[in-house]
Amino acid sequence: MSKATQSGLHLPPTHALAADDALRAAVHQAVADVRARTPLAQSFTNFVTINLVANAQLASGGTAAMSYLPDDVIDIAAMCGATYINVGTLLPFYKDALGEITSALHDAGHRWVLDPVAAGLGATRTAILTAMRDVPPTVVRANASEVIALDALWGLSDGEASPKGPAGVESTDDVDTALMAAVRVARHLRAADRDGLGAVAVSGETDLVTDGERVFRLPGGDATMTKITGAGCALGGVTATYLCVAEPLVAALAASLLFNRAGERAARESHGPGSFQTEFLDALWAIDADTVSTSTVLEVSR
Amino acid sequence: MSKATQSGLHLPPTHALAADDALRAAVHQAVADVRARTPLAQSFTNFVTINLVANAQLASGGTAAMSYLPDDVIDIAAMCGATYINVGTLLPFYKDALGEITSALHDAGHRWVLDPVAAGLGATRTAILTAMRDVPPTVVRANASEVIALDALWGLSDGEASPKGPAGVESTDDVDTALMAAVRVARHLRAADRDGLGAVAVSGETDLVTDGERVFRLPGGDATMTKITGAGCALGGVTATYLCVAEPLVAALAASLLFNRAGERAARESHGPGSFQTEFLDALWAIDADTVSTSTVLEVSR
Amino acid sequence: MSKATQSGLHLPPTHALAADDALRAAVHQAVADVRARTPLAQSFTNFVTINLVANAQLASGGTAAMSYLPDDVIDIAAMCGATYINVGTLLPFYKDALGEITSALHDAGHRWVLDPVAAGLGATRTAILTAMRDVPPTVVRANASEVIALDALWGLSDGEASPKGPAGVESTDDVDTALMAAVRVARHLRAADRDGLGAVAVSGETDLVTDGERVFRLPGGDATMTKITGAGCALGGVTATYLCVAEPLVAALAASLLFNRAGERAARESHGPGSFQTEFLDALWAIDADTVSTSTVLEVSR
Repeated sequence: MSKATQSGLHLPPTHALAADDALRAAVHQAVADVRARTPLAQSFTNFVTINLVANAQLASGGTAAMSYLPDDVIDIAAMCGATYINVGTLLPFYKDALGEITSALHDAGHRWVLDPVAAGLGATRTAILTAMRDVPPTVVRANASEVIALDALWGLSDGEASPKGPAGVESTDDVDTALMAAVRVARHLRAADRDGLGAVAVSGETDLVTDGERVFRLPGGDATMTKITGAGCALGGVTATYLCVAEPLVAALAASLLFNRAGERAARESHGPGSFQTEFLDALWAIDADTVSTSTVLEVSR
Repeated sequence: MSKATQSGLHLPPTHALAADDALRAAVHQAVADVRARTPLAQSFTNFVTINLVANAQLASGGTAAMSYLPDDVIDIAAMCGATYINVGTLLPFYKDALGEITSALHDAGHRWVLDPVAAGLGATRTAILTAMRDVPPTVVRANASEVIALDALWGLSDGEASPKGPAGVESTDDVDTALMAAVRVARHLRAADRDGLGAVAVSGETDLVTDGERVFRLPGGDATMTKITGAGCALGGVTATYLCVAEPLVAALAASLLFNRAGERAARESHGPGSFQTEFLDALWAIDADTVSTSTVLEVSR
Repeated sequence: MSKATQSGLHLPPTHALAADDALRAAVHQAVADVRARTPLAQSFTNFVTINLVANAQLASGGTAAMSYLPDDVIDIAAMCGATYINVGTLLPFYKDALGEITSALHDAGHRWVLDPVAAGLGATRTAILTAMRDVPPTVVRANASEVIALDALWGLSDGEASPKGPAGVESTDDVDTALMAAVRVARHLRAADRDGLGAVAVSGETDLVTDGERVFRLPGGDATMTKITGAGCALGGVTATYLCVAEPLVAALAASLLFNRAGERAARESHGPGSFQTEFLDALWAIDADTVSTSTVLEVSR
């Protein structure tokens, strides 16, 4: 009995993404471009995993800068390709600061990735995330529970999804239960984007990536990624790194595929969560554009 | 000449904890239950070692969430088994936030572990720790100097202890000099607890754990644990993880024993503080309930 | 065509520092004294690399304490040998806090190291760094762009340097382009110091260290040091550790030489940025005073 059946969902049929699909070439180009250009993506992120986010961005070929003051973030946005914003470990001043920052990024047409950590928990976080509805990110990277919660906070839901609600920072929902919420959030992002672009990446046992039209399931990765803190945050940061050189759907696919391949390699080389983290950064560094772009990708058939 | 003699203390006689003491079975159960249930323990902790705390909780079998806003911490407390609070790297708003949080935890009967980092230093920290006297934690995990300072701040001391005072975050006192202070603090915790439970763990060359009645000395561990930052904080965090499934004395014993065994194993596998930290997380993951529960434990004879 | 020629600078001729130069003996003594005395150097530093700063200080033989509240920092300054202040990841209250702290350190004649991360970016950072002009540090540790920016912020420049301006936290300038700025900043530090001492260390492909009179170029290190976050911050922290036992020029030289030797060793032992960081901490621990003090040092001829 599959997980999808267990959760009462009937999974839609999928087919393998063709070897010559233009998306694969675009993913290859994104991975290669980051290695060639070392783009700067800045972050406003939580204190738990901030070091891993920066190191993952460096290991993937980019550079990193982390800031919290609007004057810093807005100054740096003018000189970098994309920004990563993660709402973990909130401080009191973030509510005003993130309002100012997201408005400025929106006005500038600057691309950014949102990681709505623990969406649905805490009055301050709820206020922050709700306010982002009208100045939304270019990409959302989250677990299933967070995507479902964001969909509800933004009033996009039409009652299809049945979230169990958040459980701290861990997802209590299967990725597939967030499929329709992810599609709705992606369409909302695209409607607000000046170029009509946007994507949502849902991390889980099998990742899901969508631009609101096409939906992809990315098998692989390794369960040890849930035994270190920050694999998801680092994925959000590296998605911003790719967003410096590629369109949102391509950036989201490239980052998730790179992370799955790196997780598999690290699992083979390690013997516990400590050595896994070390090997994971080495793997991000070592894995090449060919390996990423030829990964198995399943597209949900329409 | 022993350290105890040097410091002018006569160490009380001890005897080995019997193989069939009920505490050993309870420690075994705690270690196994955490592996089976992956309980969530949240943390309000310092920025230096926050990543290691989370990773140690994950490697020990639990899950982690870190927050600073009262609305976050109080929301999460309602859905998790225990909370870890560490007063390192204070920010200005912590004084009010920690007052609100500790009162709410007390009113809810929620179990929590206090790590009174650098107790005795700084007017803000002194105010924060003093205010905790009336809404105290379930477990205190600290070094000898910090336990002695907390005993004094809370007015529990009757002049027996002779603290040298704090020296930053490093202890300047032997664990055994804190014996009476630890007993007094533990009794204070139990008097304030609705179930009459509480424990104090003093970390050092030989750890000391007490519930205010029984006193245990835990030999072992490795000196390299003092050459990485955060072994003590991580121990506090994992004590909270065990506190989700076990009573305070058992949780304190289980966490300290797991850390000593992991430290010994990591020392054998590593060749410096960098590889020690990696191997330490791997060892937390690998060491089983039998190894922890059959450790040498010396009980102070009464 | 050399980099210096490319940037339009004519590099001054250098000669090797003699094996019996008194500086080498002083560097040897500093490294040995830190191992023997485990001095405490405290830090007020950014959240990205705070863990690596502390672990690098411990691996180099010292101890660490991190704080942000003036009452904490000023209390600890009274009991430690030196302080490290890094202006990355600013929070709103830092402007007032750092003003209070740097004035107190200046009044007490307490030695401290400034890491002017991203100098020139952000109105708050500019205000903080400008205010330090009159209560300056004992040592500045920075990349070339930051030294050039600090020289300009403090009004020391006479138009010789041609900074390209900051690019986030990465230097866009060669170390040698900062030579005259570094000399001017070092002279400013010395003029403000009650003992007339001070030094500037510029990190890059070839490090540059000066006390405003003598100028040294330190070849070596490894490019992987730029593929992990925080090698520069950790160098600033360890410079403060050495400043507990040695004069500013000696501390700056010893720390930079130790880091270059450790970087070379870590590069040989690792196969990516993850394992590099692990091996780097092991190397800081393993490298001895002889290796550091007999390093190649090139002195700019006068």
